[in-house]
Amino acid sequence: MEQIGVSTTGHQGFYDITAQVQQAVANSGVQEGICLVFCPHTTAGVTLNENWDPAVRQDMGVGLDAISPPRSQYRHGEDNSPAHIKCSLVGASQCVPISASRLLLGRWQGIYLAEFDGPRRRQIIITALAG
Amino acid sequence: MEQIGVSTTGHQGFYDITAQVQQAVANSGVQEGICLVFCPHTTAGVTLNENWDPAVRQDMGVGLDAISPPRSQYRHGEDNSPAHIKCSLVGASQCVPISASRLLLGRWQGIYLAEFDGPRRRQIIITALAG
Amino acid sequence: MEQIGVSTTGHQGFYDITAQVQQAVANSGVQEGICLVFCPHTTAGVTLNENWDPAVRQDMGVGLDAISPPRSQYRHGEDNSPAHIKCSLVGASQCVPISASRLLLGRWQGIYLAEFDGPRRRQIIITALAG
Repeated sequence: MEQIGVSTTGHQGFYDITAQVQQAVANSGVQEGICLVFCPHTTAGVTLNENWDPAVRQDMGVGLDAISPPRSQYRHGEDNSPAHIKCSLVGASQCVPISASRLLLGRWQGIYLAEFDGPRRRQIIITALAG
Repeated sequence: MEQIGVSTTGHQGFYDITAQVQQAVANSGVQEGICLVFCPHTTAGVTLNENWDPAVRQDMGVGLDAISPPRSQYRHGEDNSPAHIKCSLVGASQCVPISASRLLLGRWQGIYLAEFDGPRRRQIIITALAG
Repeated sequence: MEQIGVSTTGHQGFYDITAQVQQAVANSGVQEGICLVFCPHTTAGVTLNENWDPAVRQDMGVGLDAISPPRSQYRHGEDNSPAHIKCSLVGASQCVPISASRLLLGRWQGIYLAEFDGPRRRQIIITALAG
């Protein structure tokens, strides 16, 4: 098990952590198995999506804002209910298969910390299991 | 592997099962690894979210109702398509890392059974794997 | 670890891969544990939902189109940002517990490849871990 920190810089954004996760898998010594990438926060999550065109992450932010906007019925005092809901929608974690000590990601897949209520200091917990 | 039952009391709601999952991890004897919390239903799921202010769960219900409302084009006979869609959005399961026989949840994270078509008797299957 | 291919036939649709995943679990020799069903694409995912009434899958498509429609603010050049967002919403993978060499799915649960930008040739990576 390994932990990494990410300092997010804006209210919402997607931060590529693929290289750090791959390094943690290499450090673990696991050759075949799965890797759990887990976010221990409730207004940030982890998602897999395209690693090439940055417009995809920008569009994801636009789309998630449209799907989970502020709503007048919300009662949570911190005014960040839209972020809590986005977090449950994209998920707090992702699992990726490992083969030959490498993450078996697709060619266009990157692993992203999804910040929905930043800027903040965030943690990610990486666990590799042999299978 | 351990199974717990939850009797939900309303049409939609979030039920804190963190203590039962932690107990199942302790029972499993797994010290380092991951825990899969799995819901074998198609109109209920599992999500991680804030364990402190109950308004967050209330707002999540409001938000998910707005994201997946009834729609006139739906054809499924049981009239619960919004629940099926919510289930695919929040997911049927969550994975949480285990360290020193404890779930490595964040300070504000709880594990919730998400009921979208209750009240019903629901099952949750808890599997701990050593890593 | 096993890989299966699925040729999708329309722009959006849900393809039942439960039998192939069960076969991969049997081939793995894992009796108790978990199975990761992983999609290495960014405009297709994996979801669990009802395996009985085909109208549920049809309604899921209608619902996801309403949740993630085309939006004029999108900038990604391939015009498939709605599909990328659906992919992050339903998720790239699902984990299912294994007991007595069988997937512990509920009676009404099937495992579906969710195509959001087809038709395409898709891959699914199946990893079983003993626990």
